Parts: sequence; C-alpha cells; structure tokens
Amino acid sequence: MKSLLNEIRRTPVLWMLIFVPAVLVAETVAPHSHTLLFVLSVLAIVPLAALLSHATEAVAAKTGDAVGGLLNATLGNLTELIIAITALRAGQYMLVKASIAGAIVTNALFMLGACLLLGGLRYHVQEYNRAGARLYSGLLLMATVALLAPSAVADLDLVQGEAVMRRLSVGLAILLIIAYALGLLFSLKTHKELFASAEHGEGEEHWPIGLAVGTLLVVTVLVALVSEIFVESVQKAAETFGMSPAFVGFIIVSLVGAAAEFAVASSAARKDRLDMSVSIALGSASQIALFVAPALVLLSYVVGPSPMSLQFWPGAVTMVMIATVTASFITSSGRSAWFVGALLIFIYAVFALTLYVVPPTGQGTG
Amino acid sequence: MKSLLNEIRRTPVLWMLIFVPAVLVAETVAPHSHTLLFVLSVLAIVPLAALLSHATEAVAAKTGDAVGGLLNATLGNLTELIIAITALRAGQYMLVKASIAGAIVTNALFMLGACLLLGGLRYHVQEYNRAGARLYSGLLLMATVALLAPSAVADLDLVQGEAVMRRLSVGLAILLIIAYALGLLFSLKTHKELFASAEHGEGEEHWPIGLAVGTLLVVTVLVALVSEIFVESVQKAAETFGMSPAFVGFIIVSLVGAAAEFAVASSAARKDRLDMSVSIALGSASQIALFVAPALVLLSYVVGPSPMSLQFWPGAVTMVMIATVTASFITSSGRSAWFVGALLIFIYAVFALTLYVVPPTGQGTG
Amino acid sequence: MKSLLNEIRRTPVLWMLIFVPAVLVAETVAPHSHTLLFVLSVLAIVPLAALLSHATEAVAAKTGDAVGGLLNATLGNLTELIIAITALRAGQYMLVKASIAGAIVTNALFMLGACLLLGGLRYHVQEYNRAGARLYSGLLLMATVALLAPSAVADLDLVQGEAVMRRLSVGLAILLIIAYALGLLFSLKTHKELFASAEHGEGEEHWPIGLAVGTLLVVTVLVALVSEIFVESVQKAAETFGMSPAFVGFIIVSLVGAAAEFAVASSAARKDRLDMSVSIALGSASQIALFVAPALVLLSYVVGPSPMSLQFWPGAVTMVMIATVTASFITSSGRSAWFVGALLIFIYAVFALTLYVVPPTGQGTG
Repeated sequence: MKSLLNEIRRTPVLWMLIFVPAVLVAETVAPHSHTLLFVLSVLAIVPLAALLSHATEAVAAKTGDAVGGLLNATLGNLTELIIAITALRAGQYMLVKASIAGAIVTNALFMLGACLLLGGLRYHVQEYNRAGARLYSGLLLMATVALLAPSAVADLDLVQGEAVMRRLSVGLAILLIIAYALGLLFSLKTHKELFASAEHGEGEEHWPIGLAVGTLLVVTVLVALVSEIFVESVQKAAETFGMSPAFVGFIIVSLVGAAAEFAVASSAARKDRLDMSVSIALGSASQIALFVAPALVLLSYVVGPSPMSLQFWPGAVTMVMIATVTASFITSSGRSAWFVGALLIFIYAVFALTLYVVPPTGQGTG
Repeated sequence: MKSLLNEIRRTPVLWMLIFVPAVLVAETVAPHSHTLLFVLSVLAIVPLAALLSHATEAVAAKTGDAVGGLLNATLGNLTELIIAITALRAGQYMLVKASIAGAIVTNALFMLGACLLLGGLRYHVQEYNRAGARLYSGLLLMATVALLAPSAVADLDLVQGEAVMRRLSVGLAILLIIAYALGLLFSLKTHKELFASAEHGEGEEHWPIGLAVGTLLVVTVLVALVSEIFVESVQKAAETFGMSPAFVGFIIVSLVGAAAEFAVASSAARKDRLDMSVSIALGSASQIALFVAPALVLLSYVVGPSPMSLQFWPGAVTMVMIATVTASFITSSGRSAWFVGALLIFIYAVFALTLYVVPPTGQGTG
Repeated sequence: MKSLLNEIRRTPVLWMLIFVPAVLVAETVAPHSHTLLFVLSVLAIVPLAALLSHATEAVAAKTGDAVGGLLNATLGNLTELIIAITALRAGQYMLVKASIAGAIVTNALFMLGACLLLGGLRYHVQEYNRAGARLYSGLLLMATVALLAPSAVADLDLVQGEAVMRRLSVGLAILLIIAYALGLLFSLKTHKELFASAEHGEGEEHWPIGLAVGTLLVVTVLVALVSEIFVESVQKAAETFGMSPAFVGFIIVSLVGAAAEFAVASSAARKDRLDMSVSIALGSASQIALFVAPALVLLSYVVGPSPMSLQFWPGAVTMVMIATVTASFITSSGRSAWFVGALLIFIYAVFALTLYVVPPTGQGTG
C-alpha cells in the first residue's frame, strides 16, 4: 500500500485519480450533464490507464519471462479493450470500429511522431537499431493488411447480405488470433533475443505481487465503471462539440487509451533510446490489429446486442494503410530528426481535420 | 530415354504422371463426372509442369547463355500460359484474369512465404543478399504497377464503352511486352552478373538435346489436352465445392501452375540459399505481369471468341498491390525468420478466405 | 546585359526565346489559330522557364544563405505557379488540379527516370548517397499523403455540399503551408548540412544582382503573358489533338514547367552525380505538394471566379500515390542501372496512355 502511495506521490499524472470519485459522484448527482460527465470521465481514465499499465508490468515482472511477456502483451491495451467492450455492449459499433482503426493510426503516427519530435528537439540526429525497427514495422504492416483485407478486397456494396459478412469476420477473427498466438511464440520463445530492447520498465522497483494483482483487479473494475459513463455521455457531448462518433472513437478514445504508453515511449525518446519508443508505438499498434480487433468481433457474440463485423468504412481503411506504410518507411532508415516527427504529427492532424469536417456516413455500422 | 526414366525414378512427383492417362481415359469413359475430371486433371498437371520445367532448363542449358536465358524466361510459366490459353478459347475471361492476378499473388505471398517459413524452421535467422532481392522486388513492383495502372486509374464505371477499354488494353499490352524485352536485354546481356544467383539447376546433369526438345513438345501437347479437360470440368466442379471462377483461377490454377517452381524454390530455402528462393518467387511473379498477361490480351484476338481487356475487378487490384508491396518490403531487409514466412502465408490465407466467402460479381468479365 | 547575352549564346535552349515575340505577334495577327498559338506558347515557355531558373539562382546566390535558400525554394516552381494562376483566373480548375498532380508525377517518375536512364547509359551501375535520397523521399511521401488525405479519406459522393469541402480545403492549405515553413526551417537552418548536396549551380559565374532582379521581373511578366495565350488556346487546341484538359494539365503543362530543372538534373546524372538529380526531382515534387498546391487554393479566393478545393479525381490520387511510393522505394537502395530508369519512364508512359484514352469525367472540377 505504501508503494502505491509512493507511486502516486512520484508520478504527477496519478494526482488525476481525484477525477475517478468526481465522475462517479457527478454521475449520481447530475446524470444529464453529458458534457461535464464526458470531460470528467476522460480525465479519470488517463490516470487509471497509467495505473493499469504499472500494475500489469509489476505482475508480469513477478511471474517470470514467458507468462510475464504474455500478460504484458495481452493486457498492454487493456484500457482500449475495456472502453471498446463497454461501447460494444451499448451497440455503438461505429465507436468501436473507429477506436480500433484510430488506435492503430494514433500509435503509428501520433505516438511515433511525438517521440521523434521530442527526441529530435533534444538531439540533432538520432540513430537507432534498424533491424529491430524493421521487425516491428514488418509485423505491423502484415497485421494491418490482414485486418483490412476484407474491407479492401470485398466489393462491399455487392455483399449478398449481413450473414456473409459475419461469417467472413468470424473466420478472419480466428485467423488473426492464431497469427497473434504464433507471434507470441515467436517473440517470447523462439526469437526473444530480437525483442530484448522492447523491455519497458527495467531498473525500476516493482510492487509486491499481492498489491499488483489487487490493483489490477480494482483498477479494471474502475475503468469499466468510468468507461460506462464515458460511452453513455460521449454521444450527446460529442454533438455539443460538433463531433461525430467516428471522430470521438478515432481521435479521443485512441488518445485517452494511449496516454499511459505515451508517457513511457516519449520519456525513452528524450533519453535517446528511440529503439524502445519505436517498439512501444509499433508493437502497440500491431497488438490492436492482431488481438484487440478480433477479440472484439468474437466478444460481440457474447456481450453485444448483435454480432459485429470487421467491415471498416473506406476512409478508415485508407488512413490505416497510409499510417502503417508511412511508419514502416520512416522507421526503416534508423535515423531521425525533429522534422520527421513533425511531419508524422502533421499527417495525423490532416486525418483528424478531415474526419472532423467530413465524418463518414452510414457505412460500417454493422 | 533412359535419362527420362532415371528422372522419373529420382523425382517422386513424376510418379503422378500416372494421372495423365487416367484423366484422358476418364474423359472418354465418364465425360460428365465433372468433380472426378477436375481432381484428376489437377493431379495430372502437377507432374507435367515439373517435367516441362526440367525440359525447358535442359534445352536452355544446351543452347548457350543468351538464347537459353531467353527460353528459360519465356517458357518458365508455360503451364500457366497453356491453361490460360485454354480458358481464353473457352471464353472464360474471369478465370483467365483471376489466374493472372492469382499467379502474381501466389508467387509473391505463398511461394515466398513458404520458402521463408521452411527455411526458418531449419535455420534460426537467415541472411541473404539484399541487393539482389531489392532488384527483383523493384522490378516486380514496377511490373505490377504497369499492369494494374489502367484498372486503378480509370474510373471504370464511366468508361465510354468496350471499344475504349480494348484500345487501351492493346496499347498497354504492347508497352508491357516492350518493357519485358528491355528487361531481358538487361538481365541476359548488359547486367547479367547481377542475376547470377538466379541460375536454377546448376550442378545437375542435363538431358541430351533431342530428348529435351522432344519432351518439351510432347509434354506441351499433354498439358494442352489436360488443360482442356480441366477448364471444361472446373466450372461445374467448382459449383459442387461452392467455389467461384475467381476463386478457382486465383487460388487453384495458381497453385497448380506454381507447383514445379515451388519444389525448386523451397528446396533452395532448406539449403539456406534464400537468394535463389526470392529470385524464383519474385522473378516468376514479374514474368506473369510483364509477359504472360499482355501475351494473353494479344492472343485473345486470335484464339478467343472476343477480345479480352486488362481490366481487373477492384479487389484483384488491391490484392496484387498489397502482395507486391508487402513482398518488396519484407525482402528488402535481407534477413528472415520463420514468423515472417508464416505471416506472408497468413495474408494469403486471408485473401483466399475473403475470395471464397465474398466472390467478385459481374465486373472484369470483358 | 553582356552576361545575359553570353548566357544566351552558351545555352542552346535560350535561342528558343525567339518564340516569345513570335507567339505575342501571332496572338495579335491570328487570335483564332488555336493550334498554332498553343504550339508557339509551349515553345516560348520552355526558354523563359530556363531563364527564370537562372535568374532565381543568381538572386539567391547574392542574397546569402538563408534568404537565398528561401528564394530558391519558393521560386523554384515559379513557371508552374504562373501557368496555374492563369488557369485559375480563367476558372479552369480541372487544368489546375491536373497540373498539380501531374507536376508531382512528372518529377517523381519522368524526371527521376530519365536521369537514371541517361546516367545508366553512361555508367554501368551508379551508386549514390542513400541517406540523402531517403530524406527527400521521406519528405515527398509525407507531403503527398498530406495533400491527398482528404481526397482519399473523405467519401466524396457523400460530402454534404461544396461549403464543407471548401472549409476542409482552406484548413488543409493552411496546415500544408505551416508544414512547408517548418520544412524550410529544417532544411535552411537546423539541419542544412544534410541538404548540402542539393546546391544546384555551384562553380558557375553568377550575374550581377541588378541584372538578375531585372531579368526575374521581366521574365515573370513574359511568362504571365505567354501563359495567358497558352491557357486560352489549350482547350481548343487540345480538342483538335483529341486531348482532355486533364491530359494537357497532367502531361503537357508538367513537362513544360519541368523543362528547366530537367536540364540541370539530367546533366548532373551524366556526371555520375545522382545525389543532385534525386534531390532536384524529389525536392521539386515535394515543393509542389507543400507549397504550390495550397498557395493555389488560397489564391483562388483572390483571383479565381470561385474558390477551388483540394479534391482530386480518384485516378489522380492513385497515380500520385503510386508515383511517390515507387520513387521512394527505388531511391532508397542507393544504386541504379539503366533499366530502373527505363521502368520509371515506362510507368509514366502507362499513366499518360491511360489518361489519354480514358480521361476523367465530371469529378474534381470544383
């Protein structure tokens, strides 16, 4: 308990935990103040995500190499997963799909770009391990191709009905999870030496296992509670700010979900350890494509009002492909300067602006 | 004759030659057992393709460097070409186009992936000559861009009629064949030293020239006969298995046509000679785009019931582009491990599944 | 004045200045001979562009590093800009957009390809600085992504009206110009040593500043006058030759506008200085995307009959993306031989043929 309090004292973001009780109280007192609830729930999710990430790493560190790596890889995007499951239960499929596509784009463009920019503002030119970056970007490229293939390949207007699309989506979800399992075998077992530099929190003191598991459970419940308020309020609040569900899922949910990892990745960049920044950003994007997305499709049969497909709207397909190819190309050189990061963020801004002004309509909602 | 029998004894696949008389007999006895004829004809084409490939190499070895290289390059995909011409004569344009697009994708994803996977299961990390792989993937990238440009660029719904599309296709076919001729000049004459590692059958004893030419002629006739049975039976048999013409052309014809080269490429990979595997896989894909495809367009004016265009359905364009870009990116690193191969095969499986569940409808049949 | 005459004597292309008075006279004498005026105006713009380029460099050389670099970067595509402004004033938006997309494609495929081909015909294999080429191709990739994002991402058929598209275009134009300004800061200030090899005319005697500024002003006026005749005559002349406005903008205007830079870039390639050729070709393409295109959108509010959007027709988006990715991939290896150049030109020819036979219809005109 003392380590937890120490952690909170040391990490400024954890002071934001005050917003967790705040949003729960506000929900009871003023259940119709959607904008207030939306802002408070966003502010509450950020520190919870950070705590979740710490707790996952602590549990992983205690359980040894293979199981720990598995835990870290599986729970690394737990916040995104919980928010998406909540939206799934509410039947908000556009929000779910936008948050899947948006998480990949946010990791590959914004998180990577911000790391390169922040690192580049301190160091003139940064060099990093090309081989490692190539491995991650290759995995990301193939993961997104697999995820998007049906949306890109199938002539969706001509699809003979919902049933066909669902059968395809379930088949793909199973293939993706098999690929994910093979990827874990590869990175945790047969070729783990290639992934060595991806270790996040080396050298820091870890919590005792009881505290870690307890924190993991309690915070998961809290994230789930706050997510519910977030998903309930977001649609009406978004209307107030003139934002479509696609914009909220693609930009807001992605940024909120990535906040905790962003703190780690950008601090690594400021220490000239771009290897780690690249592996966090691209690894997280790959995990969304190979694990979170298919898990949500399969979960939709259990928790959703109706099954969800893997059919994305055309603009999402284009944005994810552009983000992935650009990130692959940029990281394959092994060198960086501030302007490279600035341009990645710039492309992200262009996507955000386009999505804000011209939201997708109708398609991809099933 | 003795060398031919020796060859058959040494090469297990050639025992499958038994299916050649079997399918010819079955065609006479039971001309309406489409499924049986389909299965038998596939089983008969595989050893014939292997024999054709051996005979071509033997003739090429005897006729000296330049002519031999030309023969090898031109007849390397003879099986695919004969099957496609048979389908062309039957007016099955969707089958022809699907087999063109499918041959590129099968070579770039499945053959390359299987080589990397099989090699990777034996060797921890395989390194190979980056420069050579880059050359091949660059050629492949440009060949597919040239092939697909009209489908990608022209707004096909707005095309002012069949006549325009045909004029464009003939113009492009001529451009592609000029590019192919320049490519032969480059690889066989001005820069042949760059392509040295692509030599397939070095160190093996070759047949006498008479036997080689004779085998080449006889086997070509046999492939043509069996192809006719294959194309006749495939449509009805495919319906039985729930397969569309696009799926049959894209997956079945491509795999059958590539079987012989696959044997050579995968055995090279198992000997840690990935240079050769990459050059066979990507070289074969390039040849389909630059030579087989335009040859079929021009031949359609002679043998087809009506001229064939180079207009592919949108999904085919996307799949070929994704396959080419992915193969280029993967091979440009010069390193590989088993998971890279697994992911390439995985993308191929995703394409196959998508094509099976959601076949293209209507478009690209002219 | 003597240096100007010397320059004309030394540079054969400047003898073509004779076409400048010729076209001005023809315009007065035979204002309805559209084909004659079209041909004469094209022939007149080529030497004017060369002179403009010389004068810009001379002014840049006199004004010191930072201001000179800024001038060179901003006025480097002045000819394209003047022609486009003239077309803008005439309300020919399809011509303007086609010339923007075409200038990027012409620089990235034709100019680069011709340099690699011409260099490769003299040298067996040419090696050049990979790092520099990678930097330029990375910038080009990101610049075109930013330019094309809205066309690629927004489902244009569903756009809720012209007003939305215009708001988006203005927002993007401002973002693009900010990115351009950051790029100048990067290349002229913080990381100028990376761009050292891009210096064009080192070692040649420069004009006195008065002559240079005078030439710049006079030639700009002449280009504007001739451009007006060109834009007026082009539509009717194009009909005579069976060319659409898209083809004229994409191919003719781009080639005419790039002629001056092409002379410099190809002469560098013949001297085995491919670094410079690559930086001119890709740098010029980036500048069109980041500066000329947004400048035209903003200028359309001042000089055009109605505002112009950044919405390109789908084929243009595909061609620019293919050209950029291909150029990036080809130049990232740092090696070249003649066939690589031949294939780039070949892809350009395929695009030109497609655009000639199947012009885009209707879309992208607002």
